[in-house]
Amino acid sequence: MLIAMKITEFLEELGSNSPAPGGGSISALAGALGGALTAMVCRLTVGSGKYAEVETEVTALLAEADALSGVLTRYVDADTEAFNKVMAAYKLPKATEAEKLDRSAAIQQAMMYATNLPLEVAACCLKVLTMAVRILAIGNSNAASDAAVAGLMAHAGLHGALYNVKINLGSIKAPGFQQEIQTKMDLIIKEDERLHSELIAVAGKVIG
Amino acid sequence: MLIAMKITEFLEELGSNSPAPGGGSISALAGALGGALTAMVCRLTVGSGKYAEVETEVTALLAEADALSGVLTRYVDADTEAFNKVMAAYKLPKATEAEKLDRSAAIQQAMMYATNLPLEVAACCLKVLTMAVRILAIGNSNAASDAAVAGLMAHAGLHGALYNVKINLGSIKAPGFQQEIQTKMDLIIKEDERLHSELIAVAGKVIG
Repeated sequence: MLIAMKITEFLEELGSNSPAPGGGSISALAGALGGALTAMVCRLTVGSGKYAEVETEVTALLAEADALSGVLTRYVDADTEAFNKVMAAYKLPKATEAEKLDRSAAIQQAMMYATNLPLEVAACCLKVLTMAVRILAIGNSNAASDAAVAGLMAHAGLHGALYNVKINLGSIKAPGFQQEIQTKMDLIIKEDERLHSELIAVAGKVIG
Repeated sequence: MLIAMKITEFLEELGSNSPAPGGGSISALAGALGGALTAMVCRLTVGSGKYAEVETEVTALLAEADALSGVLTRYVDADTEAFNKVMAAYKLPKATEAEKLDRSAAIQQAMMYATNLPLEVAACCLKVLTMAVRILAIGNSNAASDAAVAGLMAHAGLHGALYNVKINLGSIKAPGFQQEIQTKMDLIIKEDERLHSELIAVAGKVIG
């Protein structure tokens, strides 16, 4: 498992001439890092008398940040597995007409999975970004730069994941599927744009 | 060392109620991930007959991406150490006037170090972004989304590092130093803006 690797080993594997792990796994990792940083800021806020007023809300945010960071961490390996499934499908035999049909269907199925997965990563990153913006606004001001970085990581993970959606979507021969995914992407992009602007604005006020 | 931790352990440590590691280390890690991804795309480009024309340039890019990823990886720990030095300075005794002066000087020195370090991280991230944009434009188009994600990670690491510069800069009582740092930040931000726009434009053409 990639996430059981030491950071130095993972970076070496990432930089190697093997195409996996690649940008999809890194996008999920960026989201997981953002989620963990959000959780840290929540932990530095709850239990402090100064922030007693927001204790209930921050406790709920903390539970969600921990959970999302966990989900996104699992997607690091899941994305690389999805990529490997696509590669395996391309290597299926194609000597006979029947084999060609089977191979083509296997590729389409693997591609759909490898498209849905980063879309889910993007959706999770959007949730992390939402939480980072909120904790930046109401959480421990000593950790404001941490909350801002959490948001930046989620934002980068989101767009990175969407590049992976787009690059795979082009190989899928089902117009209905394409339209459905595009609609979901558009919603995520619109919401990300709003939240990212808010992150920058709040960070500008709190950090300078 | 943080970078000798398993990814899962690091994420747990990050999310804990200890303020370090925090956003500074994560910004360096984002840059290191971007550098490693850039190196991967370079490796998937060199040696391929299809890209023989750019072989010399990509070989040079590869060496630089490997080196920068290494530097940024070391900054993951260095940033947390810099933060810990600031905390240690704040804990120095302040019973006598002499102790107060010594403590104040130690805080200023530690703060200057903790300001210069993320500025260096941002400068390295800018170089990674430059290389990511270039390899996206000339490298293996099968790895286009990887190059795009590399650029997004570098861009996020850069701005994350600059939030850390800003939050520490506020505590430094030397107007000359503040002005010098601000000038360097302005240059980095301007160049990042140009490169990020180029990344999005090229990615839009290549990926869709």
